[in-house]
Amino acid sequence: MIEAVRWSPDGTALRIIDQRVLPAEYVERDLRTLDEVCDAIATLAVRGAPAIGVAGAMGLVVSLAPYADGAADVFADRLRTNVERIRATRPTAVNLPWALDRMLRRAERARGTPREILAALHDEATAILEEDRAMCRRIGEHGVALLAPDARVLTHCNAGALATGGIGTALAPVYVAAERGGSVSVFADETRPLLQGSRLTAWELSRAGIPVTVLTDGMAASLMQQGSIDLCIVGADRIAANGDFANKIGTYALAIVARHHGVPFYVAAPTSTIDPAVPNGKAIVIEQRNADEVRRSFGRLVAPEDAAVYNPAFDVTPGELVTAFVTDRGVVRAPYDFSRWGD
Amino acid sequence: MIEAVRWSPDGTALRIIDQRVLPAEYVERDLRTLDEVCDAIATLAVRGAPAIGVAGAMGLVVSLAPYADGAADVFADRLRTNVERIRATRPTAVNLPWALDRMLRRAERARGTPREILAALHDEATAILEEDRAMCRRIGEHGVALLAPDARVLTHCNAGALATGGIGTALAPVYVAAERGGSVSVFADETRPLLQGSRLTAWELSRAGIPVTVLTDGMAASLMQQGSIDLCIVGADRIAANGDFANKIGTYALAIVARHHGVPFYVAAPTSTIDPAVPNGKAIVIEQRNADEVRRSFGRLVAPEDAAVYNPAFDVTPGELVTAFVTDRGVVRAPYDFSRWGD
Repeated sequence: MIEAVRWSPDGTALRIIDQRVLPAEYVERDLRTLDEVCDAIATLAVRGAPAIGVAGAMGLVVSLAPYADGAADVFADRLRTNVERIRATRPTAVNLPWALDRMLRRAERARGTPREILAALHDEATAILEEDRAMCRRIGEHGVALLAPDARVLTHCNAGALATGGIGTALAPVYVAAERGGSVSVFADETRPLLQGSRLTAWELSRAGIPVTVLTDGMAASLMQQGSIDLCIVGADRIAANGDFANKIGTYALAIVARHHGVPFYVAAPTSTIDPAVPNGKAIVIEQRNADEVRRSFGRLVAPEDAAVYNPAFDVTPGELVTAFVTDRGVVRAPYDFSRWGD
Repeated sequence: MIEAVRWSPDGTALRIIDQRVLPAEYVERDLRTLDEVCDAIATLAVRGAPAIGVAGAMGLVVSLAPYADGAADVFADRLRTNVERIRATRPTAVNLPWALDRMLRRAERARGTPREILAALHDEATAILEEDRAMCRRIGEHGVALLAPDARVLTHCNAGALATGGIGTALAPVYVAAERGGSVSVFADETRPLLQGSRLTAWELSRAGIPVTVLTDGMAASLMQQGSIDLCIVGADRIAANGDFANKIGTYALAIVARHHGVPFYVAAPTSTIDPAVPNGKAIVIEQRNADEVRRSFGRLVAPEDAAVYNPAFDVTPGELVTAFVTDRGVVRAPYDFSRWGD
């Protein structure tokens, strides 16, 4: 299985697969500085709510290495500064602040020199990575019960191995079903504007030998009308206490279309994606991205320069459109109350 | 107003705006041969159900010019051959066979030499063009009553001036509203895979000074959730007797999403788009297009070579999701019965 985020062999860099250039090129990058880490997250070289939580924690560690032999107050100052710089890269996924706050708590508990604190932070980031991997596996094992052996699964964006430290969230049940020998197949919404579905989901599933069909975002309803989709599974970037959730733009339309056709609509996410402090979807901050992601797709002008562009990165789907949440703690059905799901 | 299809000044060519290269370039092309006409329609240099009906009729005339001074039986043979070649370019829009059958009937009625028959066909094609222009205008005048002066209209694909001989179908009420001094604005789904919304609708509206905002196809639901859309208007490629209709892929999802939010969903089309012989949507043939339209978008590989691709050009929306049809004969509300709308 591919590893979207991991330590470089000597442990001094955060090694990522650069998701901006897939599927045409496979490039791994070693990130060592704060700027490199922030740029990789902001430009979606590393992306996916669980993966940016893990990358934020690991990236914080590598960004602090130059200060390990310096004064304690300089290190403490850098720690706070770097956490806030990384936190500000992307606002919607809760996994990033969740991981960074956990790193801050670990630093507070740690005693000793900057080098000793850094070692504790390295351990904590490794734990976050390994826990993410384990959460993905458990999501897959809980979720596979929802899939017939020959299930035709529609997904949106990429909530696969590339979006996590492990086998993904939405795709975890698919990978587990394939391991168990079924003939599961996937239909991947291409997911405009950045095409994480056609570029990433189709790439990782093809690589794993799982049949995948790419479609444009407007085609899912047509497939459901023909009875070609058994269920939808998507990931999430932040889940509110009442089950409303933010995910890649286009998810909400897919949930409405699935409901219209009576197709089950599942959301797969680790506990780290649940934000019990947010009561409902209205309180989730939605990242607005640059107009040129839509206007100048892949280097070409595809809309007039003087046309306005609407380009939110995410939308919010009400919990009432969700058949069930598939979490590392099991399958959760309505009525949803995640208000006590804090760590 | 732009003219998507017209005669060249000397009347010997069909002059089109090449819609494949907009908005980056504005190129007009003069088509004179059968191959040029068929290629322009098949590759969407000229597109839109009404426009391909008009272009088919006019293209037939220019393709027959070399036979005007030849034998009558050769001309008659060429007429049949060329009609069938043009008819086969695209299967879904009924306007193309509608216009070609009308040309055949005119040829049957005409008496005289091939040159005289060709002159009659030239007149008939001109009549089809002028009637299309008039139908667009009437659609606009009937439809404008549905728009508040400051209406925020969402549309899909391009059913504007570029898709017709006149001011469009779905956009005709918008143009008429703007002429009357309102502050109507348009939200244009980009319409993957070929981006007729961002490339064409946004271009022609910008050129006309009408405010337009481009969004990806998955974003419309988010705008409706925020209360930012007052109504949807789309075109149609073929309307069945019961009100089911084929239109650009993604239309069906939009209709479901509009219904979910209680946003009125209108279909604007001329009488030539109604096919009374087709009882319902199941009987409409849907064109499947090349996988590379999705896989190699914008000149780049955006999905793995070994991933399958689903790429229908159209979907079918059931009439029950349509608030009203806006036709040149007036606004038609449910229950729909177009079975006696033949000419």
